[in-house]
This record gives sequence, structure tokens and C-alpha cells, in this order.
Amino acid sequence: MTTSGAVHKKAADLAKLVVRMTAEAGSGHTSTALSLAHLVIHLMYRRMRYDLSDPRHASADRLVLSGGHGVPIIYAAYADLGGTVGRDGEEPVRLTREDLDRLRSRQSFLDGHPNPAEGFPFFDAATGSLGQGLSVAAGLALAAKLDGTDRRVYALIGDGESREGQIWEAADFIVDYHLNNVCAVFNCNGQGQAGDVSPQQSPERIAAKLEAFGWKTTTIDGHDPALIAEVFARVGRSERPIAIIARTVKGWGVAALQEGNWHGKPLKMSQVEAANQSIDDTVAGLFDAEGELAGPMTPIPAATPAREPRSPAAVTWPTFTEAMQSAGLGPALEQGKLATRKGYGAALKVAGDLLPQVVALDGDVSNSTFSEIFARVHPDRFFECKIAEQNMVSVAVGLSAAGYIPFVNSFAKFIARACDQIEMANISRANIKLVGSHAGISLAADGPSQMGLLDVGYFRGFTAVRADDRQSPLCWLFHPADAVAAYHCTRLMTELRGMCYMRTHRPDVALIYDPQTTFQPGGFHLLATGDELAIVAAGYMVHIARQAIDQLAEQDVRATLVDAYSLPLDGERLMETLRRAGQCALVVEDNYGGGLGAAVAEIAAHAGDVRVETLCCQRIPKSTLTPEDMLDYCGIGAAQIAEHALAARRRPAG
Amino acid sequence: MTTSGAVHKKAADLAKLVVRMTAEAGSGHTSTALSLAHLVIHLMYRRMRYDLSDPRHASADRLVLSGGHGVPIIYAAYADLGGTVGRDGEEPVRLTREDLDRLRSRQSFLDGHPNPAEGFPFFDAATGSLGQGLSVAAGLALAAKLDGTDRRVYALIGDGESREGQIWEAADFIVDYHLNNVCAVFNCNGQGQAGDVSPQQSPERIAAKLEAFGWKTTTIDGHDPALIAEVFARVGRSERPIAIIARTVKGWGVAALQEGNWHGKPLKMSQVEAANQSIDDTVAGLFDAEGELAGPMTPIPAATPAREPRSPAAVTWPTFTEAMQSAGLGPALEQGKLATRKGYGAALKVAGDLLPQVVALDGDVSNSTFSEIFARVHPDRFFECKIAEQNMVSVAVGLSAAGYIPFVNSFAKFIARACDQIEMANISRANIKLVGSHAGISLAADGPSQMGLLDVGYFRGFTAVRADDRQSPLCWLFHPADAVAAYHCTRLMTELRGMCYMRTHRPDVALIYDPQTTFQPGGFHLLATGDELAIVAAGYMVHIARQAIDQLAEQDVRATLVDAYSLPLDGERLMETLRRAGQCALVVEDNYGGGLGAAVAEIAAHAGDVRVETLCCQRIPKSTLTPEDMLDYCGIGAAQIAEHALAARRRPAG
Repeated sequence: MTTSGAVHKKAADLAKLVVRMTAEAGSGHTSTALSLAHLVIHLMYRRMRYDLSDPRHASADRLVLSGGHGVPIIYAAYADLGGTVGRDGEEPVRLTREDLDRLRSRQSFLDGHPNPAEGFPFFDAATGSLGQGLSVAAGLALAAKLDGTDRRVYALIGDGESREGQIWEAADFIVDYHLNNVCAVFNCNGQGQAGDVSPQQSPERIAAKLEAFGWKTTTIDGHDPALIAEVFARVGRSERPIAIIARTVKGWGVAALQEGNWHGKPLKMSQVEAANQSIDDTVAGLFDAEGELAGPMTPIPAATPAREPRSPAAVTWPTFTEAMQSAGLGPALEQGKLATRKGYGAALKVAGDLLPQVVALDGDVSNSTFSEIFARVHPDRFFECKIAEQNMVSVAVGLSAAGYIPFVNSFAKFIARACDQIEMANISRANIKLVGSHAGISLAADGPSQMGLLDVGYFRGFTAVRADDRQSPLCWLFHPADAVAAYHCTRLMTELRGMCYMRTHRPDVALIYDPQTTFQPGGFHLLATGDELAIVAAGYMVHIARQAIDQLAEQDVRATLVDAYSLPLDGERLMETLRRAGQCALVVEDNYGGGLGAAVAEIAAHAGDVRVETLCCQRIPKSTLTPEDMLDYCGIGAAQIAEHALAARRRPAG
Repeated sequence: MTTSGAVHKKAADLAKLVVRMTAEAGSGHTSTALSLAHLVIHLMYRRMRYDLSDPRHASADRLVLSGGHGVPIIYAAYADLGGTVGRDGEEPVRLTREDLDRLRSRQSFLDGHPNPAEGFPFFDAATGSLGQGLSVAAGLALAAKLDGTDRRVYALIGDGESREGQIWEAADFIVDYHLNNVCAVFNCNGQGQAGDVSPQQSPERIAAKLEAFGWKTTTIDGHDPALIAEVFARVGRSERPIAIIARTVKGWGVAALQEGNWHGKPLKMSQVEAANQSIDDTVAGLFDAEGELAGPMTPIPAATPAREPRSPAAVTWPTFTEAMQSAGLGPALEQGKLATRKGYGAALKVAGDLLPQVVALDGDVSNSTFSEIFARVHPDRFFECKIAEQNMVSVAVGLSAAGYIPFVNSFAKFIARACDQIEMANISRANIKLVGSHAGISLAADGPSQMGLLDVGYFRGFTAVRADDRQSPLCWLFHPADAVAAYHCTRLMTELRGMCYMRTHRPDVALIYDPQTTFQPGGFHLLATGDELAIVAAGYMVHIARQAIDQLAEQDVRATLVDAYSLPLDGERLMETLRRAGQCALVVEDNYGGGLGAAVAEIAAHAGDVRVETLCCQRIPKSTLTPEDMLDYCGIGAAQIAEHALAARRRPAG
């Protein structure tokens, strides 16, 4: 049994490390880190069951630092303990106290904010954009329940960041799923960046809110080791999830940091000595005779893997027709028309049949996205996140860190609620699959508030960045034109490592592909060949472009039709195709600019010998009764495409 | 005094209209609309003070329908009352009951979800993407306080959508700003789209949460006219904001709609007659002898405009130097280096000096974005939104609807929290200005969780869409390279109607522009001219490109440097420039793909006679100690640019 004195002694020790490393780096959130000293020491030296030489152990307790800027105190503790660091594929090493002085430098494992991908595997996800950590913790805790392990997940959350609505989305989700293996710790130091936190984020208010959300709360002095030990001992023993509201001192230990606004500001090297003295003064008289804190002492809970993941590349998928029939879509199939969202839904169910690590999340629209097919067959792996998309994406990041392959479903429009969470997922290198339905304008009657019009442009940004292998893109985008394509692209998403985004549409459309057709990342298919011009389209617009091709044929204009179902495109092959098609391409899209048209233009402008025009949605849509009327309203109907194609073909260069 | 019977009678009447119009349209949320019948009737016929012939009256009460899919009941009431409709610039007309049958059709003012821009000025903002309405209401209420009017703002919120964290961000904000002129009405019909709402969104839980957030709540039967009247009479008389939790019946009046899941599904025309009978049965015995509901009866509160807006184009701005001095940046200026965020901060303060309708919002980072300069001088028009970006953007939409010009400030990365809200702002045609600081990778040490890397790509999507004038883009993007440019671009943002986005950077950089330089939307400047190649850059990268230009000059390669400080670019002028510069351009960007490079490539691929390459951030950044190290890590340092430029110049076409 360690004593409070030993904790204070360790707090003083680590506080000095924090002061020094941030002064050395010339940046960092010294004062926030110091406010966490005693809480972090309790968790990392006394409470958490984990293995310093195997921080990713499948059933070890986890810590999510939601307020990621406080990370120096965790680096200090981990270095003191000698925990293992190292990037994937590199020889792991033990972190030393000397390593701390390279905080934030280019070669360091110690990034400015938590980032497992840079070699700090103690964390499961990148944090630093605020308010996301409790959701990540919920995902990890959900995975623990699925795995049947007794893992506990601790989330450290700042008082200021608890203003983010996502924290409260997570609070709801954790109650809905009875995740009493989560412990949320609110670090109430009372100060934000630009000023004091609002009274709405006072310890009393945060506690009252959490109680109203159905949590069990206890408020303590966050620098009192005995109180901390007492309250943490209750975690996991309550039906309700437990939140600990800790009153702390920003800049604990260093008097100078407690005057004025020191948020995000380190001390100068010349001030370190005085700071150390201040720390010593703070703990003077708090030491007692016995006890030294060593490493984590409790054994890790036994791992009882409930399901053994299978290699996505090793399983055999049924034929498209078998899959549709097994999903109850056989009768629909016979009519020759099926929406891409339905083809995807059936594929998702098959993915679940084949791969026990596939899970699905939806935001109260599973009967629109057709993730409901999965939900019916695999209810234990389907998570209804309700109308809270930010939490949904970050929960998926937690599930991914625990080895699952989460498919995240909503309308494309509402997935945009989680753009920042999606970017954090990529920084975390999360293996998540996002599927946005009702994309583009073809849903017509519901109007623009339900339409995904910027999704291609947004996700395309990621496709231009390289993943850590320096080969693959950071994200693959799939935009299938029919249910066959949607089925095969879903399979590809299970096989590809990292983020994938698929865009599906509402209307039932003709099946244009033979069920056996091969699809591949970055691939495209030719649906017509002509030597005067190419029309490039994807998804729903392939069908409209086919009508335009027919209209052009009536005028004896032979056009090529490219179904660009995946980004980033294979540029060389595309250019060969476009050269054979009259060195002139018209790209049509049912969204705002910056999407497929820009992707093709970049390739063509690089090559320099093919002209490209884009016809995208020309104005903000409004409701219309039919997709045809909507296409016309937005300037991208079949006749308008044909007209533009003719003009593009005739226009001289320059 | 009207009686309950008259309300029930009206409810039956409007319910039949709702059933019919959605059946005619073949889509629409019949059952949700019916659950709102009595609440809407109370508000629109008895409680709200507004003018049917002038629904935009500056001090009239306002209604925000957060759960926008319930809108048919409001259309029915407004048609019954004969309220004014019409798009801007068109002759206003009175809505008739017959007009309802054109719901959702192309020519109709009645969009699938609330949208003032399509001719329904009773609303202030587009809704339909959930969870945003309470924030819009807060913005309208804040404007009422600024204006000194007694306007009250009612927000109708669904139980399911109260899962969105943004509702709780708004709840905090409303308490922080003592907006007791807001009344939030929660429509608890118990059903979401895919299933029942969670127990976390039960009336009891919602009430408990709101009380914990500091609101005063009352729970009522949402179909009891007497109770409704009693509780609404208390609005505005309490110190605390009032929330009314109304238990309602989804599909009220129509038995068939109350069995199974009818969310978002209209009845067929053949079912209308039976539905009407069911409605009659529901209200049978509830009528009493007296009373008919007429129009809104209470006089509109007097307008006492506290500040008269000035025309942004008519005011005279001080010189750049005067402005910097007046903002306390004189000493910094003398050193010849100033960050764009500081130039912007000073400009924002000047905008506030000159234009009483300019307001600023920030999310706890005003000492980083430099909106703090404005806050110091104009504290009454500065709103600290704390760490809750979604609410901040939607509050700005409300302020804009009330005639203010809001500048919304945060890190570019965190503005991405509000992508969906930003898109809704555009659907609302809100006149808001967004400014994202710490964009790109130059902040270095804090790492990728703080970096705006997709913002240019995202906002560029809007720049490709036309605004309602069919001429201007829906959004202008500004990306100034120095404080002079930032100053002038801020002025442009005040003058341009509609959304503008400005991107600023952390580091102090050299002043490269003469203070008198002219800037214009879509413009660019040449900072060097050479005939072998052009480098196109913006913002911070202009400075790095200048270094590359110098390195090229040492190798006797004469390159043009284009500072593309605004999007969408003037394509024709750009092409002339690039043709003179060797018909070969290298675009460099400190963000992921899809930004400036794609914009230039689209123009060039259209013209067909200039080759374009893009060098953007090649990988996910990590912390480095200096911007130089970061540029090198991401592959876009000066030497790397020069190297790519040489290769691009030598590469043959094709």
C-alpha cells in the first residue's frame, strides 16, 4: 500500500519533468499538464492494469486523454516507468526520461498531442481536437463488452472541452449501452484558453448535468491522493457509468504558472530553476516516510477472445445474386432495378456473415441507409447511435483501435457533421469505413438540407495524401453506379486497410453491370466507347450520362462513357482512355465543385494534352417532385449534358 | 378569449390539410407534422406577435422549426391565415390553401424543409439537418437584446434530435447570455426515424437535463390547448430561459399513422378520406359552442433600433498603417513582420469601428485568432461561444437573419466541426464571414490535431456554385499572404454579400505588399515574373515560394510567382499569365489535395494549353519544432518546390 506522500513525491518529480520538457521544446501546455499530475499518477502507477512492455495488450485497461494538450504529464509518467514506444514496423524501445527533452521534435515519438501512430502506443487514438475522447473511450469499452473482457477505459476530459456537444452525445451513448466499464474524469481547473471556463462548466454544473444524463458522479479534490484512490476503487462496481469530477489547479506546483493566463505557454529555460523550487515548496511537508511508487501493479484481466477475426482477403464472398437473395432482395432484383444503397446494405450483411470483426453503426436512419439488413442478422454487432453523428464516428475510432472494422452509416449530408472527427480518425490511422447515402441531388423532394453535395470534394482531399506506406492513399473513395458495383466495392472496403468512403444514392436504378464484373480501388469501367469525346461520371450520374450518350448518338456523335467508381483514379490509364476519346472530356457530377471533375482535371492538366470541362450542380437545390426535375433545375439533366458535350467538343483550345 | 374547442377544431382542419398536401406530393413527414398541430396553432394563432403581411418585421416574434421535417403543419397554418410568401425581388403574394397541394414541387414556395430563400419568409433560416434550430434561435434572441426589442423566439425541437450535442451547446450558450427571450419547445412524440427514441430522450430525461443546464422547464400534454396556453404565457417572465416539454402523439388524429413506423411516409391519396374521418372522430366531442381562431392578435412589440446599420461600401477605411496603430500593432509593424491573423484582427476591429452591424464570435481562442482586438474595443458586440463551434456557426446564422454581419473565429481545423452548419448557412443564404486561423502546417509544434488541412478544398466546393444572382459564387475564399492583404481582404468580406471564408496563419511573416495595394475578389497578384514557369501559391506558402524562386534564379531559371489570394480565380486573366510564363505551372499548398492546385488545374484543363502540377502536403504531419522542419517533413519546403519546379519545366507533355 502506497501512501499519499509517495504520490506527492512522484507528482513533484513528474512536474519538474513537465516543466523542463516544455521549456526545452519552447511550446506545450505546461499548466494543463500539471493540473493532471495526481490523477495521472493514480491511474498509471496504481489503478490501471496494463503491461509497460506491451501497451497494446488486448485486455489491458486503457486511458484516453480527451484534452490532448495535457499530454506532457503522461509522457513524463511513461518515461519514468520505462514504457515501450515505437512506430509500427520499427523495433520497440523503452522511453527514457532523457527522451522527454525531445518532445515535439521531428524524430520524437512524443508528439505535441497524443498520437499513437507516431510511436506512442499507450494511446489508442489521436486526440487534441477537443471533446472527442469520451466517444473514443465508449468505442473501446463497447469492444471490451463484445470481447467479453473486463477491460476498463478511463477518459480524462477538460472542463472547458465539456462544452462540446459531443461529450453529451457520448454521455447518452454510454448510458444506452450500459458501458459501466467507462470512467469519465473531468479535470476542472477552471481555465480555458482565452479566459475562465463558463459557470456552465463549473464542477457543480458538470456533476448535475451528468447525473441528469444518468451517470453516477463524485466530486473530489484532484490533488488529494487518498480521495482519488477511494473514488477510483468504485469504478466498474456500479450499474451506472461513473464520472469523477476533480477540482484541480492549473499550473499545480508552480506558483508563477498560477498567475495570469499561462494556457499553452511553457516557461523559459531560465525560469525552470525557480519553478522547480516552487514545486518543492508545494510538496514540502506532504511526504511521509514510507513507500515508493513503482509500475502498474494489478495483473491484466484475462483475455477471453469472444470472436477470432478472419483475414478479409481470405474469405470467399457469395455471388452477387446469392447475396441479394440472402438479404431478402431477390424479388427486387428480378425487376432489374435496385438502389446502390440496397446493394450496399446486402453487402454489409454478407461482410458481417463472413467477418466476425465487422460491426455497423447508424444514426437513426438504418431503414434509409439499409444498414438495417445487417442489424436484423447481426443485432449484437449493430450499434444504434441515434441522431448524434460526431459521437458515432469517434466511437468507430475506438472500435477500430480494438481490432474491429466499423462501418459507419448515415446520409452523406449528416456524415459531414463529423468532418473533424473523420480527420482525427485519419490522424489515428483508424480502419473505419464511412458510407453516406442519399448523396447528390437525386433524392429531390426532401430538398437540400438532406443532400450530400460536398462529400466527394471533402474526401477527395484525403485521397491525395499518402498513407504511412507512402504508396496507398490515405483514403479510398467508392461511388458505385449500380447495386453490383456497390456489392463489390463493399468487399474492397473490407479488404483495404484504413479509411474508405462510399457514396450511395436513394433511387432504384438499372443494373448495368454483369454480376461477375471485377472492381478495384482506383479503377474505372468503360460503358461506351467513341472517339469524339468522353463523358466521365460516377454513381447516379452514370445513368443520366448514358441518356446523354444516347442523345449524342442520335446526332451521330460517338462518345466514350467512363464510370469512375473509385478515387484516386488510375491517372495513366485514364489519360490513355481520354486520348482515344478525342482528347476532350466532360465530367458530370451531382454535387458542388471540387469532386470528380477536379480529380480528372488535375490528372489532365498534369499531362497537358486532354481538355476537361466539368458540369456540376450549378446552384443550391430546392425541392422538386422528381429526380428528373431536380437534375434540370440544377443544370445537369441528360439534355444539358449532351448540349455541354457538343459545345466542349467544338470549342478550340485556349 | 378562444376556447379549447376552437383550437381542436382548427387542429382537425389543419391536420386534414397536412394529410392531403403530403399525399399529393407523394412525400413528406405527415406524422411528425400532426404531432405539432396544437403547439403550432397556439403559437401562430394566439401567442406570437407578428404581421402576416410583413413576416420579416424587425421586432416581430420568430419561430424556428428545428425539426424541419414537421413543416407541413406550419405551411397549413400559414395558408389558412393567408400569410405573405415570395422570393426576394419578386412580388409578394398571400399563400392560399390551394397552394398547399404544390408542396415540394419545383415552382412552389413550400420546400420539403423550411427554407426562407425559396419564398417562405416566415422562417429566418433553413432547417432540416437536425439539432441546429436552438442555436439559430439563440442568434435571433441575441440580436433582439442588441436591438433592444422585446422580440421572443420560439424553437420547436424534436425529442430525437435533442440527441445532437449541438442542442446542449445551445442550451449552455443561452444561459451564458441570459437569453430569457428564447423559449424551447420539445416535441416528445417518442419516435425517431428507425425506431423509438432512446430513454435518454424521454420527456423526463430531457426535462432533467435542461434543469441541470439551468433552464426552467414545464412538462405538458402537447395536445391540451388550455395547458399549452397557460405555460406559454410564462415565457419571458422568468430569469431563466423556459423550456416546454410537450408529450405528443406522432400522427395525431389519424389512427392509421399511429400504428407501425410511418416516419417520413405520407398516406396515399386513396387513404385520405379514411384519414379525414379518423381526424373527425378524434376531435368529436371536443368542440364547444363559441370561438373561431383568427390571425395573430397581439400587437408587435415596438422596434427601437439601437443601432442603424451603415452600408459597408460607403464607409472609409483608415490606411493600413493607421489601422495597425489603432489596434496596438504599431510596434510589431516596425519590425517588418506581422502574422496574417494579426492583420485580420486589426481589420476586424476597424470593421467594428465603422459598421455597427459587425459582430464577432469566437470559440475560446480569441487570443490566437486575434479577434481579441475586436473584443477589447467592442465588448458588447463580441460573443464568447466557448469550445462549441457548431453552436457558434448557427448562432451566427441567426444574427445574420436579424441584419448583423457576424465574423466567426476559430482555428481552421475547428471550424470543420461545423461543416454541416456551414452548409445550412449557405442554404439559408446567411451573410456570415468565417475566419480560420492556424491553417496549414506552419504551426508545426502542436501537430496535426490543430491544423486546417482540408479547409481550402471544402470551401472551394461552394465557390463553384452560383449564388441566386446567377453571377457571384456562393462563397468567396480569401487566403492572404501578409497582414496588408489580410487587412484589405477583411474589408472586402464586409462589402460582399453572403458567405466568405478567410484563412490565416500563425507565424509572423514579412510584409510583402505596399499598404496601398488593391485587392479584389477573385484577384491575384504577380510577385515575380519569368517566362519559364509559374509558381502559384497563397498565404504562408507565398513566402516559401519566394525562397524557391530565388533558388531557381540562382540556376538561371526565371519563374513567375502568382499570389492567388482569392478563390474562385479570374480564370481568363490567370491563363494569360500562365501562358506568358512558359505554359507550365506548379501550384504549392500547405494542405491536403483538392484546394488551390485543383482550382488552377480545372481552369487549365478547360483551356487545354497550360500544364499544371500540384505539390501539396504529402503525408499526415507530425510535430516538429520549426515550420521549416515541418515543410520539409511534408515535402513542400523551398528546396523541394524548386526541385519540383525544375522537373515540371523539363517534363514533356503527355
